[in-house]
Amino acid sequence: MLSKNRIKYINSLKIKKYRQLHEAFLVEGAKSVLELLDSDFETEFVLVTQEFQQKYSSILTRHNSDVETVTIQELEGLGSFQTNDSCLAVAKTKENVFLSPAPTEYMLVLDDVRDPGNLGTIIRVADWYGITKIICSRDTTDFYNPKVIAAAKGSFTRVSIYYTDLAEYFEKIKDLDQKVMGAFLGGDSLYDFAFPANGGIIVMGNESNGIGNQVEAFVTDKIMIPRFGAAESLNVGIATAVMLDNMRRQVPV
Amino acid sequence: MLSKNRIKYINSLKIKKYRQLHEAFLVEGAKSVLELLDSDFETEFVLVTQEFQQKYSSILTRHNSDVETVTIQELEGLGSFQTNDSCLAVAKTKENVFLSPAPTEYMLVLDDVRDPGNLGTIIRVADWYGITKIICSRDTTDFYNPKVIAAAKGSFTRVSIYYTDLAEYFEKIKDLDQKVMGAFLGGDSLYDFAFPANGGIIVMGNESNGIGNQVEAFVTDKIMIPRFGAAESLNVGIATAVMLDNMRRQVPV
Repeated sequence: MLSKNRIKYINSLKIKKYRQLHEAFLVEGAKSVLELLDSDFETEFVLVTQEFQQKYSSILTRHNSDVETVTIQELEGLGSFQTNDSCLAVAKTKENVFLSPAPTEYMLVLDDVRDPGNLGTIIRVADWYGITKIICSRDTTDFYNPKVIAAAKGSFTRVSIYYTDLAEYFEKIKDLDQKVMGAFLGGDSLYDFAFPANGGIIVMGNESNGIGNQVEAFVTDKIMIPRFGAAESLNVGIATAVMLDNMRRQVPV
Repeated sequence: MLSKNRIKYINSLKIKKYRQLHEAFLVEGAKSVLELLDSDFETEFVLVTQEFQQKYSSILTRHNSDVETVTIQELEGLGSFQTNDSCLAVAKTKENVFLSPAPTEYMLVLDDVRDPGNLGTIIRVADWYGITKIICSRDTTDFYNPKVIAAAKGSFTRVSIYYTDLAEYFEKIKDLDQKVMGAFLGGDSLYDFAFPANGGIIVMGNESNGIGNQVEAFVTDKIMIPRFGAAESLNVGIATAVMLDNMRRQVPV
């Protein structure tokens, strides 16, 4: 039986304030928990159904995890998602550590991306295209939000995030002299753009307002995804994928 | 004051069975309702806040709509979404009419796309890339689901959908002799693929299982989006955008 304290603790981690206080976050669902166990994140404990425990006993033992067996009903009562039906883990958050691009590396910068589903999708897309560092403005949604972790589908274990003041950040890395490419409605066509072979920074903006003025000042190249129909805009997760796809066709990892 | 009958009617339209019975669906939020009024959909009635009515009175008058003014509280109680705070419309659904590709046209085919958010995103992406016809397997989620309409962001007014048995459909259009390109993990690289200048059909599959065997039999070209990192897969909305973006770079509208 799950203790009341544990239930209370898990529920508290759905709220950012308590994630920061406890330096911990929730990971839900079999695929994400298995990727968590194989990552460099520190796991506090794992709640699993008997079925899950039997199926993955070797993995759970290998990682020497604190494992508690619970019923499906208990799990469903705890999780953020209806489909969370076989396991849930609590892991330690990582410190917010300064990240900068290595020579020839491509990095993503997010200016005020608010929707957790979008951030999770961007993390998954970054992982697909071999991007491992994302710099976020302070008002970008919290990486450790359960909806972000769920949408990232395990990719949260392979992509590092650094929250900072973006203007200060760009000042700090100015000497690296890398191109800063921003997605703008009305920029130059993505299809005509030559992505630098020595890496660079791709900036994506807020869902409604795009890239803010403060960050725009650091953008060296404004790029627009060509439009052929009548939709007013693309979702920021979609736009990120199209930008990275065009970049990787020219500059493979 | 909203009548009890109207409240009951609106709530019933959140369920597919009643949308089919009444041949009607919900459109929520200012942007989507304004695009609805400018489209060839027939609108039954519009509920608006006083503020919305004042701001858009000329549009509402021009369309001769049945407009009822309601409070924000009444609207919030009705809608599917918390952000639905200025208007809601009920419109007539369209008949499920056979669609086929015109010469040189590109069309999308969806095999069992289940998530309403994904279908809405695909509709928006199709609209961006100038695709106006989508053929869906019968088990693909309902176009008129409020979550689809919301995610499509107005593009639902410009993209036509036809639900059908896909195997029968491909048999019917066989004489058009168009290429059928399917997104497969393990297909040929998208970057090396030459999209036919005379149009074709791009097939996207189910979120978990991809394209089914029955439909796979009609695919002439299996294409894979190149991967540079470790993510296992891409979301189907993202994959659709990347496919269409690569296609349009070669074959603009």
